[in-house]
Formats: sequence, structure tokens, C-alpha cells
Amino acid sequence: MIPVEEARTRILDALRPTGAESVALPEAWNRVLATPVHARLTQPPADVSAMDGYAVRAADASQGARLRVTGSAPAGHPFSGRVGPGEAVRIFTGAVVPAGADGILLQEDAMPEGGSVLVEEAVASGRWIRRAGLDFTAGDLLLPAGRQLTARDIGLAAAANHPWLSVHRQPRIGILATGDEIVLPGEPLPPGGIVSSNAHALAALVRAAGGVPLVLPIARDDVNAIAAAASEARFCDLMLTTGGASVGEHDLIQQALGPQGFALDFWKIAMRPGKPLIWGRLGQTPLLGLPGNPVSALVCGVLFLWPALAVLRGRPAAAPPLRPAILGTPLPQNDRREDYLRATVTRREDGVLQVTPASRQDSSMLRTLAGCDALIRRAPDAPGLDAGAWTEALILSELGI
Amino acid sequence: MIPVEEARTRILDALRPTGAESVALPEAWNRVLATPVHARLTQPPADVSAMDGYAVRAADASQGARLRVTGSAPAGHPFSGRVGPGEAVRIFTGAVVPAGADGILLQEDAMPEGGSVLVEEAVASGRWIRRAGLDFTAGDLLLPAGRQLTARDIGLAAAANHPWLSVHRQPRIGILATGDEIVLPGEPLPPGGIVSSNAHALAALVRAAGGVPLVLPIARDDVNAIAAAASEARFCDLMLTTGGASVGEHDLIQQALGPQGFALDFWKIAMRPGKPLIWGRLGQTPLLGLPGNPVSALVCGVLFLWPALAVLRGRPAAAPPLRPAILGTPLPQNDRREDYLRATVTRREDGVLQVTPASRQDSSMLRTLAGCDALIRRAPDAPGLDAGAWTEALILSELGI
Repeated sequence: MIPVEEARTRILDALRPTGAESVALPEAWNRVLATPVHARLTQPPADVSAMDGYAVRAADASQGARLRVTGSAPAGHPFSGRVGPGEAVRIFTGAVVPAGADGILLQEDAMPEGGSVLVEEAVASGRWIRRAGLDFTAGDLLLPAGRQLTARDIGLAAAANHPWLSVHRQPRIGILATGDEIVLPGEPLPPGGIVSSNAHALAALVRAAGGVPLVLPIARDDVNAIAAAASEARFCDLMLTTGGASVGEHDLIQQALGPQGFALDFWKIAMRPGKPLIWGRLGQTPLLGLPGNPVSALVCGVLFLWPALAVLRGRPAAAPPLRPAILGTPLPQNDRREDYLRATVTRREDGVLQVTPASRQDSSMLRTLAGCDALIRRAPDAPGLDAGAWTEALILSELGI
Repeated sequence: MIPVEEARTRILDALRPTGAESVALPEAWNRVLATPVHARLTQPPADVSAMDGYAVRAADASQGARLRVTGSAPAGHPFSGRVGPGEAVRIFTGAVVPAGADGILLQEDAMPEGGSVLVEEAVASGRWIRRAGLDFTAGDLLLPAGRQLTARDIGLAAAANHPWLSVHRQPRIGILATGDEIVLPGEPLPPGGIVSSNAHALAALVRAAGGVPLVLPIARDDVNAIAAAASEARFCDLMLTTGGASVGEHDLIQQALGPQGFALDFWKIAMRPGKPLIWGRLGQTPLLGLPGNPVSALVCGVLFLWPALAVLRGRPAAAPPLRPAILGTPLPQNDRREDYLRATVTRREDGVLQVTPASRQDSSMLRTLAGCDALIRRAPDAPGLDAGAWTEALILSELGI
């Protein structure tokens, strides 16, 4: 049995980001940049007005002065002439400041009178002018490779004149559930059968983590069926199995995949829930075998698959984020296995998270899992804790899981 | 000018959730339930073993006893006979406990010897048996209407035998950018023109908030062009315009949309950035007019569009979440307009957020916005604050924006 952190490191070290693809700007939200975005133009491209008003020569625009209005400069329609002495040009926010002008008389400080305007508040040179390049200059690095694109980034890339962006391909994750006893929801349920929940819960986790799930038909507990299904692995960036990882079943997966070129790295980790975990490579494709137990499968999915997807889609290798939190009820000392306890979360007035472990942690209970937004991490041999003590937890809703 | 909170209340009060649609389970992640999910079966359906081992009569299974193994019960293949006195049946995790048995002898406490098994540790009645209905019972309410579905919920709905779920339709949001000076990224840029960034930044915000954007072609500053584009509103749950909301432009939008049946509710709010904000109704369709300035458009999008989308997709009416945070640098007293300052965020060791306002808050600067994961809220007339004081902020990355 190897520790959780070592298992995660061995998994992440074996993975490489997917290649790049060009996507249209609107499709790039939440994707990870493969190529940095540099500014293709200068923004603003010239000195522009920050307000509606009149472009003037500041030297002329003392309080009480009367200036002759010689034209107009709406945004998008630059004034082609020049602002001469004693002159003003009507201007609007974002419009290019005409040659000759060096200040903006605000609309609310100006009184139009026929073809001229009365200055009611003196204008300082440079006031209300946004200088060329205030936001960025052509060639500036705006967004680095590896950035997960926000709505703000999409706006910035658009402003920098990028109709296309180069992002990492979304990793395709094959999901293979095995077991004689499971059927898909809505299918006829034989005696002793249970409805498969792992494949679609994991598919949702894959989507939440930015991947594309490929849910394969359920394979019976049969060497040939598993081997046939696993042949799809070559089209995947990572192959996931669920079930077939416990002591007896382990042999079956090994037996089925061995002839297909499966090379095992490890298959047991010191954690609860979820001791049996297969990690290896099937031909070119990394293979992660999660436990068949639904709670164990999802917890292992958060701890190992979520960071694996991050690496595959071009993000840094890292554990899922642990948040400091206050414990709602006491906890006993932990044994030598790292433990993840399902817990509810509340947020105190001061923003501190409080986590309260579910009273029953049986790993078959999906309803408890659905109702618990946090997993409290208990290190191996962690001492007992009183209510109110600090601990640390994964906030599942923060991960969209 | 009306206060931010009043504006938001007037907007949210005018909105109703979209209707329901049936989607296949794999498509339901992150959608909002329109109909509660009840359990369609009992889970586990019968008493099942929680471990690999032997199903026994606890009264027989004292330490040192030797039991005759009469059969096997793998998961999915229930043993049809009965465990009689002095008998045991090989059993695996998840398999139905055969009639007659009332306890599980763990594999590690059992020594197989030919056709029998030696009990090395006495078995307690009921031990390692998961009772029928431990997770849920047929008819139980598992997920209420209005719930935004997590990966855990998808697993639970699957286990409860739901191949389909009834969820609110994703709201369709029409996005109409107006202006003579703007062009889409990559299009020929005329003198004085700027590249449109609002439509696609807002489209990304709509996606982040669970809606479907419909980006309309840019409309020139022309009554007929705006009126023609706005006719698409009838296919939308909400129509968004950007630009055309400031003093002069306001008349244009009013003039263009009035004959199309536009009824204005309000168009000015006491906030910065983003004073001009149009709210009304174009025929049946609610219409939100955001400022043309890119930073103002996105900030108003977070404050008004984000919660509007929540209501439209079936979530409760609520402001976007403000988090308590420590201020990194001092702030002066605020004036009478509610203010949203772009700020960077760091997370301290104890989990407390620290926010530091950008030194320059010019509302044309998209690059500053992209680099700032938080918006510090300053109430009207808020007093000056020292570095280290508590304040509150919207965490944009938390909203996927």
C-alpha cells in the first residue's frame, strides 16, 4: 500500500498535456491556452476622450471663454480637421481626440450657444484624455500559455483582435464499468442486480474538470468482454475502469488486459474509502482503475482523476485544493490509512468554513455523499480533534463535483 | 438614479424560470432540476454483504468452529438456497445475504480447508451486513426541484434508476452590440474603429452562468438597424444590449425600440462603473441594456445578468455572493455611488481572502480587469478603510467569470 501523495505524484508524473487546437473565440471560455495571447494592436489606438464633451486647447479654455464649435467627433467617426485657437470640436466617449486639442471640456461644464460653447469650468491640459496604449500596446503579452480562460480573458483577447485562440484539446476519458451485477438506469433489473451509478457520476466529474467522457457499454465479468471494451483505450487520453479492482477482481482485470499490453504500476493505496486503485498503462494509454464502490469511486475520482485531468488539459500538476475549516463535531484519532470523511459545509459570518462529518460514513451510501459538499482529510495517524478545532477539507461544490 | 439593490430587485422580480425539458442523465450535470427526484427502488434492495467472506449463522460461527461451504454468492448472482446449521456460503461485497445467514465471516478471519472453512474470529449477528434500504427506500425524496446538479447528484439519480431528468431549459440570451465604431475581431478595422469585446465577454459570462448565448450581428447606430436586430428578441428569454445606454445614445435605443413595443422601467443606477443601465421589456421579452464601456458592461453583467440567469434557470433570486476579505491597501471614503473596484486576490494560510485594489481603476482598461479576480464592493458613502480592515468582495473566478 502506497501513500495518497505518492500515488498522485506517480500518476501526474506519467501524464502529458494534450495537443493544441484552434478554436473560435466564443468556444474558448474555460479552455486552457496552449499559446500565449499577444496584443495585435494598441488599445486605445490613439489618444481618445474619456467623456462626452468638447475637445479644446486647454490654453484657450479658461472659465468664461467662448469657443467656436467647428465640427463633431462621435466614436468611430474621427474629425479630420484640426482644433485651432479659439475653437472646439464636439466629442464623445471613446472618440479620437482631434489634432490640436489637448483637453476635454466636459459636457456638464459647457453651455452651447448657437455655433459656439461657453466654458463654465476651466480645462486642464491632458484632462479626460486616455492616452494611446493605456490598456495595452501591440506586442504586449496579455495572457500566458496554461491560463484557464475566464469571461474577462475572452473580452481581452477580443479587444486584442484575436478571432481564434490556440487551446489544449479537451482530454477524452474512456469510462468502462465492469460487473455482472450492474445495469444502466431504466434497463431491466435482474435479481440481485444493481443500477450502475459510477459511469455517469464519473462522466459528470470529467465534464466538471474540463474533459470529454466516452462512456463505454458495461462489460461483464469476463476476460474477453473486458479485453474487447478496453480496445477503445487507444482513442482516449486516459482510460478509466470502475470495479474489478478488489482482490479477486484484480486478477480478472490483469488477466483480461495483460494480453492487450497492460503494464501495472501500482494497485493499492493507504486510504479510506478506496484502497484498491489500479494505475498503469494499456499500450500508449494511461489507465486508472477506480474501486467499484460508488463512494470510493467518486472520492478517488476527486483525489486522482481531477488532478490528472488538470495536467492533461494543460494546467499545472497539483492536488485538489484543501481549504482550512473549523470542525463542527469531535473526531477520534485516525489509523494509518489517510481518511476522507463526507461532511456538510456552512460558511460563518466571517467567511470561515465549518465542516461537520456525516454521522455514518458507510461507503455504499450515495445519498450521504450527495448531501455532503465537503470531504474532510484526515492524515494517517492524525490525533483526535475537538469540535471547533481547525482541520482541512476539499470543497466539492467548488470543483463542480 | 436608483440604488444597485433596488435595481436588482426590480430586475429579478420581473423574471420567471424557463420551462422544463427532459434530458438524458449524462446531459443533466450542472442543470437545475424542475421536478424532484424520488427513489424508484430501494437501495440496497435486500440485505447485502459489506465485505468479502462467508455468509454464516452467527450462532454457529464461534471461534474454532468448522463450517461446511455449500455454495457461492458473487455480486449479481444470488445464492438460491438457504444457509442451514453448520453451513456457510462464500460471499462477495454487495451480494445478497442468503436466507438463513445473519452475519459475515470476513475473508481474513477464515481459513478454507477443502469443502469447509475454519472460523478464526467469532461472528456477531448482523455484523458486516448492509440492511435493505440503508441508502434509500423506494419513494424517498432524493433531490429537490431547484437543485443545481453535481456529479454526486448524477450518481445518486442513476442509482435511483432515473435514465432521464426533468430540468429547466437553459435560458437563451440574445446579445446585441451596437455602435458605428466597433467591428468583430479579425474584421477590417476602419480609422477610429475599435474591436468589439463586449459581445463575446458577455457570451462567456452567459455560458458560465448556465445560459446559451445568441450573439447577434453588430447593429450600426441607426434606428432601423437596431429595430431589425431586436426583432430576434422574441426567440430569447432575455435580450441584452451593450452600448447605446449613455445620454445621447439612450434616445437612439428608445427611438429604435419604442415602435417595437419597448416599455422602459429604469435606465440609471447609482453605481460606478456603469451608471447607464436600461431595464424594460420588449414585447414579451425582458431587455437589459448594459453600458458600452467594456469594464462597465462586465461589472454590470456580474451584478445584474448573473443573478438574472440564476432566476431564469430555476435557482433562487439572490445577489452574487459577497465574501468577507481583508484589504491589502487603504481605501478613501466613497461618494454616494456604490463602487466596484477591481482587485487581486490572495488566500492566506488560514484561508482568509486578501484583496488589493488595482492602482488605476479607469473603466476602459480590460487588461486590469482580466488580471483582477475580485471586485471590492464599496457601499455609498462608505468610510475610508485602513490596510488590514475587513471589506467584502465578489470573487469572479468563483463564478467562472
